[in-house]
Amino acid sequence: MESLRVELGSRSYPIHIGAGLMGRAELYRPHLGAGGVAIVTNAVVAPLYLPRLREALAGARVIDVVVPDGEQAKDWPTLDRVFDAMLAARLGRDGLVIALGGGVVGDLAGFAAAVYQRGIPFVQVPTTLLAQVDSSVGGKTAINHARGKNMIGAFHQPLAVIADVSALDTLPDRELRAGLAEVIKHAVALDVPFLEWLEANVEKLLHRESLALSYAVRRCCELKAGIVSADERESGVRALLNFGHTFGHAIEAATGYGAWLHGEAISAGMVMASELSVRAGLISKPDAARVKALLARSGLPVAGPAIAPERLIELMAGDKKAAAGKVRFVLLEAVGRAALLGGIDERMVREAIVAAAQ
Amino acid sequence: MESLRVELGSRSYPIHIGAGLMGRAELYRPHLGAGGVAIVTNAVVAPLYLPRLREALAGARVIDVVVPDGEQAKDWPTLDRVFDAMLAARLGRDGLVIALGGGVVGDLAGFAAAVYQRGIPFVQVPTTLLAQVDSSVGGKTAINHARGKNMIGAFHQPLAVIADVSALDTLPDRELRAGLAEVIKHAVALDVPFLEWLEANVEKLLHRESLALSYAVRRCCELKAGIVSADERESGVRALLNFGHTFGHAIEAATGYGAWLHGEAISAGMVMASELSVRAGLISKPDAARVKALLARSGLPVAGPAIAPERLIELMAGDKKAAAGKVRFVLLEAVGRAALLGGIDERMVREAIVAAAQ
Repeated sequence: MESLRVELGSRSYPIHIGAGLMGRAELYRPHLGAGGVAIVTNAVVAPLYLPRLREALAGARVIDVVVPDGEQAKDWPTLDRVFDAMLAARLGRDGLVIALGGGVVGDLAGFAAAVYQRGIPFVQVPTTLLAQVDSSVGGKTAINHARGKNMIGAFHQPLAVIADVSALDTLPDRELRAGLAEVIKHAVALDVPFLEWLEANVEKLLHRESLALSYAVRRCCELKAGIVSADERESGVRALLNFGHTFGHAIEAATGYGAWLHGEAISAGMVMASELSVRAGLISKPDAARVKALLARSGLPVAGPAIAPERLIELMAGDKKAAAGKVRFVLLEAVGRAALLGGIDERMVREAIVAAAQ
Repeated sequence: MESLRVELGSRSYPIHIGAGLMGRAELYRPHLGAGGVAIVTNAVVAPLYLPRLREALAGARVIDVVVPDGEQAKDWPTLDRVFDAMLAARLGRDGLVIALGGGVVGDLAGFAAAVYQRGIPFVQVPTTLLAQVDSSVGGKTAINHARGKNMIGAFHQPLAVIADVSALDTLPDRELRAGLAEVIKHAVALDVPFLEWLEANVEKLLHRESLALSYAVRRCCELKAGIVSADERESGVRALLNFGHTFGHAIEAATGYGAWLHGEAISAGMVMASELSVRAGLISKPDAARVKALLARSGLPVAGPAIAPERLIELMAGDKKAAAGKVRFVLLEAVGRAALLGGIDERMVREAIVAAAQ
């Protein structure tokens, strides 16, 4: 087991990474109060891992809430079901929420913990690559709104992240690849040596070689922990982790949440953002092609859906990163060096969307 | 105009108290970004004060969301309407929410601001006595759940509180008295000299004498600001402000939110909590009678509704202050000195409820 730390003063917390961590009772024990535990998980993960987690919590008062699989669970009715179960079980302010699942479960359960009785603690037990390398770290929680993804949420840091890479053994191929999109994002936005490592080792990740997966999870968590420590609430550098996300969120919204996996939308979004970086005179065409090639080798979509660029642009104007109605973009100043830029000509944005489809 | 300050490090903020403040543009100007303003108010307050507030915000991009009057507006469908209006207007992270109204509007709008795009700033413009002396200060925001009041919420401090005592001129008598319950609560729980002042001046408050109202609002805000600065998230001393609230919340839940005004329920709750303090051997019967007499002089209910004590006890077990399923009570160690105590015999609780009805 390797442990990193997200440094946030009194809200600092560890990330534990390794094989077989989920069943280790000593990782949960420091966080168990007298107030009971609510495990939030989904219908796919529950049969695989819920018994193991419940065993590790033996002795505590535990309830579980099993929500449907998929992005559509990040809605109010599902969240209200979680609240209802917690209230029916009289979970108090000294209770604990454990998120057992992927990014959807982590976002939903984390937001439930953030606002239940004005906030109770939670622990992330991510079971997908996407959640282990990205969404379980940093305290972003949210549900979706009909008018946009993650529009209702909170910054609420977990007490701990327990990333059991053994859980990736049961991950469907499509979700593994979607998680790889976020791995590649970390490298392309922040770290050229890691990008070179990925270019040399992406097939090992696709074949689920345990050492390669552990390394990739650790490197992403290191990069993310550093960023989150410096800018918890995304007033600056943290926005760089949204490379590909302004386009990606628009793709998810335009196609109805769930048709494209988040990582798939972000993959196409990164190609668009790279193309826009070329048009903004920041990187070369071969740079953009390099990003696209790695995503393609990972089996990820590199073109957006068959949707008019105008519709995507309209959706982007409602994105959370829009300041005073103007969309800002995370672009590449160089491969491995992202920057947040405003004042981008809408015509260039349209061209970048079109170019990504070619 | 008098100004106090709630000291909370980087989240410190001013409370401005005085007549005619609502229309003073310079009080809002420091908080207006480029991202637009959403005023949340209700159907009763809007015709009275919305034009004045909009005038003070002239030049800013302003939308307003008018919700129904009453406690039932603190529900998810109403909150979602607020989100929908904010998203439709493309209010960004650099936007501002202004809560114009009483406690319900403040709680609802504050919670909307707390979770909209993971949190944007807000300003409280309280128009009721209850909101001016209590709910607008301290950052507690929430909506209700079918299983309990204020069960879903956040601590989210405002950027400023602008308490215009002129707004109390239009307040219905019943709501003025309900606000007085929270004024009396501050005195009984925390400050004997203020209690003596109230005993000498309560009729002036009932007759809405402006100087008396200003003094009472200021003294309550001073007391509350001190408590909130010491314990923002209610892990200790802040719980003392909940004197009467454990019983009061149960009364509100048992009667359906809205039948009793919050302050009315808290009034009867304070009588019950005083009776329980007598039974716990903490204060004398004349002490409890003193609290009851002041509430009665203020035209407030001093007995609970015709509901079985067992039902109230059951509802209290689900209260947020319940730790590990055990209810703790804010009791009086002396008049003017509240304390949080657990391990209270349920039989005494029942006796206190019965005694309050006599």
